[in-house]
This record gives sequence, C-alpha cells and structure tokens, in this order.
Amino acid sequence: MTLTTDFGLSQPFVALMKAVIHRRCPDARVVDLTHDVAPFAVAEGGFWLERCHGYFPPGSLHVAVVDPGVGSSRPIVALEWAGHVFLAPDNGLLGRLARRPGARARRVTDEVLARHGLPQVSATFHGRDLFAPLAGDLAAGRLTCADLGPTVADVRPSPVEAASREGSTWRGEVVLVDHFGNCFSNVELFPDSVSRIREARFGSRRLPVVRTYSDRPAGSVVALVNAFGVLEAACVQGRADAVLGLAVGSPVEVLVVPSPGGFP
Amino acid sequence: MTLTTDFGLSQPFVALMKAVIHRRCPDARVVDLTHDVAPFAVAEGGFWLERCHGYFPPGSLHVAVVDPGVGSSRPIVALEWAGHVFLAPDNGLLGRLARRPGARARRVTDEVLARHGLPQVSATFHGRDLFAPLAGDLAAGRLTCADLGPTVADVRPSPVEAASREGSTWRGEVVLVDHFGNCFSNVELFPDSVSRIREARFGSRRLPVVRTYSDRPAGSVVALVNAFGVLEAACVQGRADAVLGLAVGSPVEVLVVPSPGGFP
Amino acid sequence: MTLTTDFGLSQPFVALMKAVIHRRCPDARVVDLTHDVAPFAVAEGGFWLERCHGYFPPGSLHVAVVDPGVGSSRPIVALEWAGHVFLAPDNGLLGRLARRPGARARRVTDEVLARHGLPQVSATFHGRDLFAPLAGDLAAGRLTCADLGPTVADVRPSPVEAASREGSTWRGEVVLVDHFGNCFSNVELFPDSVSRIREARFGSRRLPVVRTYSDRPAGSVVALVNAFGVLEAACVQGRADAVLGLAVGSPVEVLVVPSPGGFP
Repeated sequence: MTLTTDFGLSQPFVALMKAVIHRRCPDARVVDLTHDVAPFAVAEGGFWLERCHGYFPPGSLHVAVVDPGVGSSRPIVALEWAGHVFLAPDNGLLGRLARRPGARARRVTDEVLARHGLPQVSATFHGRDLFAPLAGDLAAGRLTCADLGPTVADVRPSPVEAASREGSTWRGEVVLVDHFGNCFSNVELFPDSVSRIREARFGSRRLPVVRTYSDRPAGSVVALVNAFGVLEAACVQGRADAVLGLAVGSPVEVLVVPSPGGFP
Repeated sequence: MTLTTDFGLSQPFVALMKAVIHRRCPDARVVDLTHDVAPFAVAEGGFWLERCHGYFPPGSLHVAVVDPGVGSSRPIVALEWAGHVFLAPDNGLLGRLARRPGARARRVTDEVLARHGLPQVSATFHGRDLFAPLAGDLAAGRLTCADLGPTVADVRPSPVEAASREGSTWRGEVVLVDHFGNCFSNVELFPDSVSRIREARFGSRRLPVVRTYSDRPAGSVVALVNAFGVLEAACVQGRADAVLGLAVGSPVEVLVVPSPGGFP
Repeated sequence: MTLTTDFGLSQPFVALMKAVIHRRCPDARVVDLTHDVAPFAVAEGGFWLERCHGYFPPGSLHVAVVDPGVGSSRPIVALEWAGHVFLAPDNGLLGRLARRPGARARRVTDEVLARHGLPQVSATFHGRDLFAPLAGDLAAGRLTCADLGPTVADVRPSPVEAASREGSTWRGEVVLVDHFGNCFSNVELFPDSVSRIREARFGSRRLPVVRTYSDRPAGSVVALVNAFGVLEAACVQGRADAVLGLAVGSPVEVLVVPSPGGFP
C-alpha cells in the first residue's frame, strides 16, 4: 500500500492513518510515496500517482489524500486500473488515471460507509477517519472494490490537463518544482524524442536540450526529458526555479520536428 | 512502538534510535509519530502523545524524546496508563497523562540503568544511548516496567496547562501551529458543543464557529473543534497563522453557554 | 539495509527506490539513514555513513546516493568493510571508509550492469534505475559483491579530509550543521580528551569546552565532543550556527595538551 498526502510530517497525521490501517490489517506494508505535496495541490498529487504506481506490484492499493474539500460532501472514489487500486477524494486527483482505457471507477456512497461501520465522520480528518479504515479493510480483504459502491463514469478531471499540441508545437506549463529546483512540465516526451526537439522554452527563456545533467558544466541551465517522462528545466548542480524565475504554472513551449514515422 | 522527538529527519538521529531498537528487538514495529516537534517544545510533544496514543493498540510502547535537559541529571520516567507504556524524560512531556486516573509512573534510576548494562552514557544523545536500548529491551520482553524503578507520585507537570474556566468563559492559548497553518488551542470541547459557543476569540480577533472548513468559502477565517478535540483557528484553504498573526502562546478565549444538563 | 540520499522527502524519489528494492527482495528491511543530506554534499553524506554504519548489524548493506555526477560515466563502487557492504557512486562518498585497513572496493562495470539486466539506464535517476536494483539483488542474495566487478585500489577521496594536526594544534572545519544548529567539525577527539583541550576556536570565536549542553545555562555558546566523536560548537537551547555565524566550511582550531602517554 502506498500513501500520498499533503499532510507533511511535522504533525502525526500520517502516523495516525498508519495506526488505523495497521489495526485493521496488521500485516499491511505501507510505503510513503510522499506527504509533502504542496497543500491542496491536487495536480501535483495526481502527477505522482500516475507516474509512480507502476513501480509497485500489481494488486497494490494507493491511497491519496490531498483534499481541499475535506468535510464537504465531495465523494470518495475508488479506481481500478491495470491491477492497481486507487482510493482518493473525487476532486481531480484521479482524473487522468480515470481516463485510461479499461479504468473502472466507483463512488463510495454514504450508505456504503454507514453499512461498513464508518458513520461517525470527523469533520476535519478524513484521512484518519475514512480513508484509513477503508484502506485497512481493503488490504485485509474484508472489503473489495465491488463492495464500495456503484461504478461511475464521471470522475472529476485533473485541474491540469496534458500539454496541448498544435502542429509541431506543444504548449504546457510547469506542474511542480522538485527538491533540487528542477521544474517538471506536463509535456510528455520519450527520451528518444530529444534529438527532434528544435526549441524548448520555459517562461521566456529558451533552453538547450540535453540528455543528462552532466552533459553541461555546473551552473548551466538546460532542458531534458527526465526520469518521469516529462520535459523539465534544470540547472546543473543548481536550482532552475531560482535561476530562471519559474514556478508552478509558468508556461512551457516545445517545438518538435516529426519523426520519420510521423509519431511525435 | 511509536517514536516522538524534536530531532528532525535531516540527520540520522532517528535512524540510529531505530538501529539500536532493532538490534535488541528485531521484530519491533516502529511507527514515527512525528520527529518535527519544535526544538525543545515539551508541551507540543506532550499534546501529540496524549491525543494520539489511543489510536495504537493497547500494549503499545510510546517513546518520546524532547529533551532540553539532555546530559543533565533529570530522570527518565516510565508511565503506564490504560495498557499503554510511555517512556520519556521527566520534564513535563508526560505531565498531563500522569494525572489521568489510574496512571502509574516509575522513575528510572541510575542504579537500574547500570544494572541493565547502560552505564556508559553519551553526554549528548540519550535517544540513541538510553531511550532506544530501554525501549528495545521493553519491546523484547527482557525488561518490564516494574524492573525500571520505583513508582513515583511527582511526575513533572506540563508547561502548558489545560485552558482555565471561569463561569462560561474558557481562557487558553495556542499550543501549536500545524502544517496547514491551523492554530490548535488547549481549549478542549466536544464537537457537539459547537452550537453552544457564543464567541471564540483567537488573539484579538473574533471568529465565526463552524463545523468544518468547507462550510465557508476559501480565504475565510473560522474556528472549529478539530479532529483532536480542541478548538482551532483555521483559514479555509489558507494559513490562519499568517492571516491572523497567531503563534504558539497567543491567547484564546471562548464563551460557551451551558448545556441543558449543565455540562460544558 | 540503510538508505542515505540528498533526495529529500518532498517527492517520491525515495519511495521509488524502495518499490524497486522490495520487488527484488520483498523481505528487505529498509531504514532511512537520512534523505536530507544537503544537495550534492558528498562530504556530509560520507560523514554519516562512516559514523552510523556501526550501529547496524554486520551484514548490513548501506546504499548512498548523493550524486552530482548522475548520468555521467562516473562509476559505482561497492565497498566491503568489517562485514558491512556500502554501495555508492565513486565520488568521494566512500573515500574515508575505503582507507580503513581491510576495506575492499570493487568498481561496478557497465559490462556487469548489462550482464545483470540493467542496460537501460535513466539519464537522471540512478537511485531508482541502478542503485535500487543492485541493492535488491544483493539483499536477496542473487548477487554478491564478488559478482559486481573487479577490486580497485583508487576509490575517490572524500572532498573533506580529517582535521590536520601540527604539534598540539588541530586545524579543521565545520562539516555540517544539524537540525538544532549545532556545528559539527572534522576534529575527532575522544570524550576524555576534553580535559586536555586548552582552546577551541570556531570561526573567530573562542569557546569554553564542556562535557554536555546542560553544563551551562540556556543561551551559552560552548564546544563539546559530541555523540559522534567530533568537536562541535553548540548554543545551549539555541542555534550555534546563527549565534556564531558559522556554516559548512568555517575554520575550526583546537589546542590539545598531550596526554601523559603522549596520545592526542
């Protein structure tokens, strides 16, 4: 089981989720994906879920709580895709995964919660009081996805769409800034597309496109297709966000010449 | 077993506690409550211990090291309450729990430490050199609370008392600011008291009392009884500490009309 | 197995290393030493490896990824010492451990990587794509150190040497500042040398040498031999880095009178 939240680690919020999970499923192996999603940053949380779940074995349960609407009536959604199960508020966190072919979503109804002994809901901490018990029961096999509620077709879309393409030009934005100051965009490219990028622009700055950081000396600003399959701006052994003045939402534009087969 | 410290995670201080615990009890399951208690903030550490231990199964051991007096002769105290065991420096961390009916405290004497093979004490890192070995031996069953030392009646009180009540007015203070900027007070109320709160004041500002964040639009400042049973000031999808100028120690005042049964 | 990186915990970089390790060795017990080594701070990472590994049982595997040269052709080195195995980029992280008597280093060749099914290397995330698979296979016993490559004699030295000694004077520098603002130097002393220190200077300030923090009142600045065997500057219940204006690299000078036996 993985956990992804914006709770931070400075208070025992995550610890209490784990306590509740382990009381319902003592053998659950819980891996923290990250708990430092920026507060309420649904798009960032969704990015990591989409890009990381595949490294965990099929059958894994991924619980995500980035939830500006906690305490409101926004529903909880359970999504099955490729043998993985995702549990999250229906606020866009699972919007991109839900559009994958074969994905099946269910909305957890209040009636289902009540039937499974979860009627007394905290007004402020659904992670501990709703998501953790559901996750523990799913992990222990006392609950299956089919028990959770009816399938639904209208999972809330992600607040950040994939970059749009017009002819040879991709237009996107910075979706997150990592620990090293690298600025991830929502422009998805295969590493072997690098040779076909004619121009990469982050904010107002045109950047040379390289294969890896060490292709340039320390202090250079570059663009590259990173280990998560998206174009990022980086500063070799420095912070691209500071050097280039970039932040979440900064515009990104990429000009890619078509491949011989015509595939971008 | 849970661990609560002010060590942070930027150095391997917690990892070394775990290494020592696991060498003495390889099967110990260790959950990090939090390691980001503000440096030396005994009241904050004590708050989390008191409010969180009940989510862990009876029989759990809770080790807390927030210890401005490390290296001094302040004793170590072991507290038993409701099937839980707490191990901490006797500096107020366990002050509130020790006053619960049925709580039993023991002071770990130097002689006991020496008898159990812990004579060579680090002057600066009791977490690794004293608390972890004791915790490992307790978890492994090689040591029981009764072995640790004589029972004592005078556990050091918490530096922050519960809010005081005068007639219908509670007077307290902000005890901690969480990751989202929510300001927790030491005014303990049941969620169903909300309807009887006539006025809630944090610092100089009177706040409307709501059931949950999403009762108001983004940017609103509100007060609510949070998931830990205390009144907090919050800013919907924002930071109450910044918006209201609150910090640990800011005064809190609450006017509650009596319930029909006269119980506050 | 321990993990030491400069990845931080704000993105799921460490989680992905663990996912890959557990897929190759489901029973691996992984302890996070720290993931908050300052970005690219090879000397800091090496300090913790050297000072902490001994608390883990012999046979432990210690994986360290602080890697300014990721994506370049700098090799990976595996070091065996005293029953422990260390796996890290050959960039100085293991420089000090490699000089210990009996240490044996091997360089992991590209050919070895390819033979073990690791040919498709991420240009930017060797932690997930190279170190984790190797670590998982080592932990699972599918790979031994001897399989990894030929022994080598020239492991890259640490960027920070041990303090130098000239007569009775040690000259060193601040190697890291911890969570509490304590400034660790590279001057290694036994705690019982304290009585023989005549003078301890951090930056331009001469500090009194004490046994433990609580020997002085809050706010005092002191020097002491800490729990990791090095001289540190500390401010009792405060931050020495701020009070003394110290940072990594600040000079440290210590005057030690010889012991009766002439051993420093």
